[in-house]
Amino acid sequence: MASPVNAPRGMRDFLPADKAQRERVLSVIRETYSSHGFDEIETPVMEDSARLHAGLGGDNEKLAFGVLKRGLTTDDLHQATDALELADLGLRFDLTVPLARFYATHRADLPRVFRSIQIAPVWRAERPQKGRYRQFVQCDIDVIGESGPLAEVELISATIATVRALGIDGARISINDRRLLTSMLTVLGFPAGEHDAVLITVDKLDKLGVDGVIDELKDRAFPAGPVAALADFLNRPAASVEPEFSETTIRASLPEGVDQTAIVELAALGAMLGADDRAVLTFDPFLVRGMGYYTGTIFEVVHPEFGYSLGGGGRYDGMIGRFLGSDVAAAGFSLGFERLVDLVDLPDSQATDAAALLYDATVEPERLIALKAALIATGKRVRLERATKNTRVLLDSLAAQGFRRVATVKADTASVDDLEWRDLG
Amino acid sequence: MASPVNAPRGMRDFLPADKAQRERVLSVIRETYSSHGFDEIETPVMEDSARLHAGLGGDNEKLAFGVLKRGLTTDDLHQATDALELADLGLRFDLTVPLARFYATHRADLPRVFRSIQIAPVWRAERPQKGRYRQFVQCDIDVIGESGPLAEVELISATIATVRALGIDGARISINDRRLLTSMLTVLGFPAGEHDAVLITVDKLDKLGVDGVIDELKDRAFPAGPVAALADFLNRPAASVEPEFSETTIRASLPEGVDQTAIVELAALGAMLGADDRAVLTFDPFLVRGMGYYTGTIFEVVHPEFGYSLGGGGRYDGMIGRFLGSDVAAAGFSLGFERLVDLVDLPDSQATDAAALLYDATVEPERLIALKAALIATGKRVRLERATKNTRVLLDSLAAQGFRRVATVKADTASVDDLEWRDLG
Repeated sequence: MASPVNAPRGMRDFLPADKAQRERVLSVIRETYSSHGFDEIETPVMEDSARLHAGLGGDNEKLAFGVLKRGLTTDDLHQATDALELADLGLRFDLTVPLARFYATHRADLPRVFRSIQIAPVWRAERPQKGRYRQFVQCDIDVIGESGPLAEVELISATIATVRALGIDGARISINDRRLLTSMLTVLGFPAGEHDAVLITVDKLDKLGVDGVIDELKDRAFPAGPVAALADFLNRPAASVEPEFSETTIRASLPEGVDQTAIVELAALGAMLGADDRAVLTFDPFLVRGMGYYTGTIFEVVHPEFGYSLGGGGRYDGMIGRFLGSDVAAAGFSLGFERLVDLVDLPDSQATDAAALLYDATVEPERLIALKAALIATGKRVRLERATKNTRVLLDSLAAQGFRRVATVKADTASVDDLEWRDLG
Repeated sequence: MASPVNAPRGMRDFLPADKAQRERVLSVIRETYSSHGFDEIETPVMEDSARLHAGLGGDNEKLAFGVLKRGLTTDDLHQATDALELADLGLRFDLTVPLARFYATHRADLPRVFRSIQIAPVWRAERPQKGRYRQFVQCDIDVIGESGPLAEVELISATIATVRALGIDGARISINDRRLLTSMLTVLGFPAGEHDAVLITVDKLDKLGVDGVIDELKDRAFPAGPVAALADFLNRPAASVEPEFSETTIRASLPEGVDQTAIVELAALGAMLGADDRAVLTFDPFLVRGMGYYTGTIFEVVHPEFGYSLGGGGRYDGMIGRFLGSDVAAAGFSLGFERLVDLVDLPDSQATDAAALLYDATVEPERLIALKAALIATGKRVRLERATKNTRVLLDSLAAQGFRRVATVKADTASVDDLEWRDLG
C-alpha cells in the first residue's frame, strides 16, 4: 500500500460541502461589510521580509514562513549566518502589516477616510493543535484616517450586523480603552514601567480567575501593595444586574480616581450606537487584547457559550503610518473566521435547485447533454450520474452532496417534461 | 522623502474598484461551473516540496517558490549543497499538482466521477513582464474518473457557458487530439522519437507562420523529407469557408492516412455537444498545447481579436493517479482568469444602491449612525463622508468609487425621509 498522501502539516483541504459552507459565510461577511460602506482590497500573500520583520507584528513575526531567494548558489548558503538572510520574502502572518504597506503604496489613490475590507488567508508556522492551523482566513475591517469615535462606531456596527446576519444569537461586544487600563493600574499603585508586564497576567483573568491572577502577580514579584489593591478591587461585591452601557456604569466598574476624560469619551462612543447595538455592548475593565500596538479603545466579540472570542480589534493610531513615516489614525476589527464558520449553519440556497440525472449505457450522450442544458437553462444546478447496482447508496451520496431531486433518463426520454422526479433526503 | 513602498516585485495590489471587478467575474465563473454540476474544493497554497518536484509540472517546477524550513541552524545552512534542501514546502505553481495530491488524500470521500472547481492563486518565480505576474489566479475545472468523452463534453459546455455568461462575444473553442498529432507526424514521415521535439516548433505556428515553422524545423535539422511533406501540407489550398465541425471536415483538415479511430471519436465528441456549442467548435490540426502530460483531446478558448488563448485544457489520463500509484482517467479545462478579467465589463450590481451621506461638524454622530443604519436596512450600501470645501472634487471621487446618490445630512435631519438626494455621475 502506498504511504498516506496528505496536505502539509497543520494545513487543511476543504471538500465540497465544507468549501461551500465557507464561501456562504464569506459572502455574508463581505456583503454586510460592503453595505456598511467598507471597500474590499487585496494584497499579495507575500511581503518583503524587511517589512514583515519591522516590529509591527509582535510575537507573530517569529512565526512567518520565509520564502527562499531564487538562484541561490552553494556559496550563498555557506556564507549565510542566519536562515533569514536566504529569504527575501515571507508569507504574511496577519493582514495588518500588509494593510500598512498597502496604505503607504496607494494613499494618493484612496479616499481621505479609507474603510477597508480584507478577507484572506494568513500563515503562521505554529505548532499545529486542535483548532489552530498554519493557514487560516482572517476577516479584517479597518478605518484609516478617522481620529474620532465614528471609526469605532462604524466598526462595531458593521461587526454586530455581520454576526447577526450569520444567525449567531447571544453574541456581545466587550469594550475597554487602553487609557483606562493604564489609569487603573496607576491608581492601584503599579509603577508605569510595569504596566505592560502586569497586563500580561491580567489578560488571563478569564482563564485563571481572580485568585489565579493574584497568585501569578505575586509569583512574578510585583509590588505587594498594588497587587493587594488589585485583589481588593477584583473581589469587590459584584453589581446585582447586568449594567447598561453608560457613563455611570463604566465609572462604577472602575476604581475611584481613574481618568475621567477616557470614561466620558468611551461613554459617548457607546451613546452614538443605535439602541439595538448599544444593548449588546458591555464595558469590561479587564479586557486587555494582546497586541501592544493598540492606543485607545479595544473590543472583542464574546459569546456566553464559548470560551474564546469570535473577533477583536481596537484603535491603533501610529502603526499604519509606519511605512509612510507619518502619523495616521486607524482602528480595526477582525472576525475570527475559522471559529465563526464552525458555529454558523447557513442554509444552502443552491440546494433547492440541485438536481441529478441518472443514466446508463443505453442512453445516448447527446440526449443527456441536451437534458442537462435544458435544466440548467431553468436555473437548476445539474449533475449527471451514471447509475450503479446499489441505487440506495448512490442516492444517499447525492443527498449528502446537497442534491434534492433525482430523475432517471431513459433511452427514449425526449425532453425535461418526460423526467419523473424523486425527492431525495 | 521616504523611499517608495511597493508590493513585492511582479505581484499586485488590488484597489477597491479592481477587487470588486475581480470578485464579480469570479462569482460568475463559480456560479456557472456550479450549475454545470462541478463542486468547488480548496487546498493549502503550499505543498510538500517532494510533490511539487515530482515531475508533474514540467518546466513550471523550476519556477516554484520554496518555503524555508523552520528552525534551521547555521550548521544546516553550511551543510546544504543545494538551496532546495532547505525548503520542505513550496508554493503551488499550478492547480493540477495539488489536485492530484488532493485526490490521493480524499478519494474515498469523493464521488466516483468527481467534477472539481478550483479557483485560486498560484505563484511562479518568473521574470516579471507586462501581463505576466508572479502571483495570479487560475480557474480550473476537472473531471476525474470518467474515461469517456462525456468528460470533455461537460468541460467544454461549462466553459462555453462561462465565457458567454461573462459577456464575451466571438470566442471559439479550438480542439485537437494528441493521437491525431502523433498520427499526422507519422504519416508525414517523422520518426516517433522526434515527435515531441517537432511539436515544440509546430506549436509556434500562430507566432511564426508557415514559413517560420518550416525554417525553424530546417534549422533544427529534422529530416528533409518529412519537413518538406509538412510544408506541402501546410501550404495546401485553404478551404474556402469556415468548416462546420464534423467527421468530414476533420478528415479534410488532415493528411491522408491519419488515425481513423481518433477522427471518428473526435467527431462523435463534437456531435454530443448542443448545436449552439458545436457551432463555436473548430478542429485545429496544429493545436499542440505545451504540457507533455496530455494524452488525448486538447482544447483552447480562442478569440479572433486576441493573439493569445483565454484558456485551455485536455485529457491527461495517468497524471492524477500518480500519487495514488493507480491509473485514473482525468480531463480538465483552465480559464485564464487574469486575461478574462481585463476583457470583461460586468455591471456593478451594487452600485445602483450605493449612497453617500455628507456631513459636517454640526451634525451629531448619533444622528449620522442612525440614518446610516436606516438606509442600510432598506438595502442600500452607505458611506459616511465628511464634507470638504471643494465639494466638486469630493462628489467626483464618490462617483468614481461607484456611489450613485448623495445627500447632505443637516443638524436637524430627523429621518431618511428628510434627505434630499442628488444623482452622481
